[in-house]
Amino acid sequence: MTNSEKAIALHKEWNGKIDTTPKCHVKSREDLAIAYTPGVAEPCKIIAKDKKEAYNYTIKSNTVAVVSDGSAVLGLGNIGPEAAMPVMEGKAVLFKEFGNVNAFPICLDTQDTEEIIKTVINIAPAFGGINLEDISAPRCFEIETRLKEALDIPVFHDDQHGTAIVVLAGIINGLKVVGKTKEECHVVVNGAGSAGVAITKLLLRYGFKDVVMCDKSGILSKASDDLNWMQKEMMEVTNLTGKTGTLADALKGADIFVGVSAPGIVSEDMVKSMNKDAILFAMANPVPEIMPDVAKKAGAKVVGTGRSDFPNQVNNVVAFPGIFKGALEGHAKQITEEMKLAAALAIAGLVDEKDLNEDNIMPEAFDPRVADVVSQAVKANIK
Amino acid sequence: MTNSEKAIALHKEWNGKIDTTPKCHVKSREDLAIAYTPGVAEPCKIIAKDKKEAYNYTIKSNTVAVVSDGSAVLGLGNIGPEAAMPVMEGKAVLFKEFGNVNAFPICLDTQDTEEIIKTVINIAPAFGGINLEDISAPRCFEIETRLKEALDIPVFHDDQHGTAIVVLAGIINGLKVVGKTKEECHVVVNGAGSAGVAITKLLLRYGFKDVVMCDKSGILSKASDDLNWMQKEMMEVTNLTGKTGTLADALKGADIFVGVSAPGIVSEDMVKSMNKDAILFAMANPVPEIMPDVAKKAGAKVVGTGRSDFPNQVNNVVAFPGIFKGALEGHAKQITEEMKLAAALAIAGLVDEKDLNEDNIMPEAFDPRVADVVSQAVKANIK
Repeated sequence: MTNSEKAIALHKEWNGKIDTTPKCHVKSREDLAIAYTPGVAEPCKIIAKDKKEAYNYTIKSNTVAVVSDGSAVLGLGNIGPEAAMPVMEGKAVLFKEFGNVNAFPICLDTQDTEEIIKTVINIAPAFGGINLEDISAPRCFEIETRLKEALDIPVFHDDQHGTAIVVLAGIINGLKVVGKTKEECHVVVNGAGSAGVAITKLLLRYGFKDVVMCDKSGILSKASDDLNWMQKEMMEVTNLTGKTGTLADALKGADIFVGVSAPGIVSEDMVKSMNKDAILFAMANPVPEIMPDVAKKAGAKVVGTGRSDFPNQVNNVVAFPGIFKGALEGHAKQITEEMKLAAALAIAGLVDEKDLNEDNIMPEAFDPRVADVVSQAVKANIK
Repeated sequence: MTNSEKAIALHKEWNGKIDTTPKCHVKSREDLAIAYTPGVAEPCKIIAKDKKEAYNYTIKSNTVAVVSDGSAVLGLGNIGPEAAMPVMEGKAVLFKEFGNVNAFPICLDTQDTEEIIKTVINIAPAFGGINLEDISAPRCFEIETRLKEALDIPVFHDDQHGTAIVVLAGIINGLKVVGKTKEECHVVVNGAGSAGVAITKLLLRYGFKDVVMCDKSGILSKASDDLNWMQKEMMEVTNLTGKTGTLADALKGADIFVGVSAPGIVSEDMVKSMNKDAILFAMANPVPEIMPDVAKKAGAKVVGTGRSDFPNQVNNVVAFPGIFKGALEGHAKQITEEMKLAAALAIAGLVDEKDLNEDNIMPEAFDPRVADVVSQAVKANIK
């Protein structure tokens, strides 16, 4: 059986990957009178007096909504809400398995920005946090920004910020390996959608000075046609020297490449044109911008990948479960930039200096310390 | 510790009554590659081709949304969505404990009819059914009707139909005990909100000919002021002789009283004024329209109650878990009148003729046969 056949057979057997399991059992009239009427009226009355008590008496304490409109699912594109469900259920599984956070998939039968915003606001009372997932750019930026303004629970678009956090964690360790500073590095981010924009923002926030964004039409600059509003905003803080040209042009003399783009678009020659001791994250999935072994042979010193069959896997699962765990435990009202930076540093810090080398810059996804360390970092930054 | 104190302490300990539990564990890279990327793309692609496959590969197969806006919660009234959560979580617990149906509480931060309808439509892809709960009348009627039109999954307002089904089941057995036929009985339903309207409709559907509805202003007739649109509709099929007066007037010579109204509003004298061998369901909760023992002493033959400390408890929990279990297993697109009648007959049929007497007209809520028998009755009526 191939892995694809196995995935189909198992998904059919599971017939949904999440159960809702009572924490209290109802085996007698007495149980019923406590967990349901009339006893249940007591916590209701307490919350009616003070909504914040919901954190003490309801699932809001430890439950995240995994929300998608199915518009940008994996590499499959706009497949709609029903077809997005296996991914969102999978995400809910990972929340529980890696962070002991309850999560429930909400796939929306609308792709209208205003309706998505209203719907998420309307369902928010049950949840302690909102994880947005696989919503296409640039709508995802507005949806997230507006929801953060409207809600007093954390709203986090994992394709953006989870990716940015793990990439930054890998780059922090990559810099240690190659012995360069963030201030001196020339960075190229290829892909100007949700992940590319968020990675660029977090790198700048961390202290990188020179980042150039590219997309399929080449280097993005103020002179580019067809920039969306977010990309226009990004031109105020990236490519400050006004470079133009192709991705190949951008990579000449670059120290760091981060690809969240398309298979096979980086050639060996492009890698050779980068600065000595280049760091290269080729994260297109499942087929990366350049295969890790090819990139290394062409001279890249540190190579990160989304794949599990090469060293240095850069996987969101080391970030989002711990981030929500910490945010929920601390009743955070949002995930701030400080929390994201702290999370990236915490993830990077899990690789001991003595073990750190070009083929070991990321903690293992199944390292049992990860979620705790990340959640502590997040909690320490709650104001 | 009183029961109230116990309910508070346990709800605090539980801190939410529902966990989301993975059906598949992710302990290795291989697990991750099947339950999440890249394997998860396979069921996504299958569903993208045919949405109906969601029943084979996602939680839609066995998951109900328990939806409330917190506008009419228990006897507490309009306490809002956060305070409604313990009840909706409790309902989700009962779905699982009694019917092995997964259920998730959705409490809405809006009480606007149009917004509620839109929100439920938008979140429907994840669910195989919608259980509406504790939404005030008459908005609940429009919300349910419009959702039934818009969605191709069952929508069921339990305060209406669950209550109506269990009341009808009790009355079916009550009639056997007193030896009367539905055609000859004069019925009074007190309370003209969601439950009272649904009970009246189902009794008429079952074959009762004479039903009079009352509310706190007395007998409802075409001449009544302040009827809402649904009550006006009900005047076309009830009180066909145009009675007017008080509840006491209505009860003179009545055979059956069903109260879904307010504590203590039925007196001993009113019971005495009813026909011989009266059936009386006093279901206001926790304090009924008249205490069951008092009603019996005043001459009522069969007395049903919402309370667990008297015989003949009429409890929705014998209906809704089995109804959704059957509807989900049969991929029903709605819960029809035929299914409701079949469910009532199935519930009534669980009390053997030899055990049937004035103090034993309802099956025990914890009778393990209930959910299966009800689900079979529902499934047999799927077209």
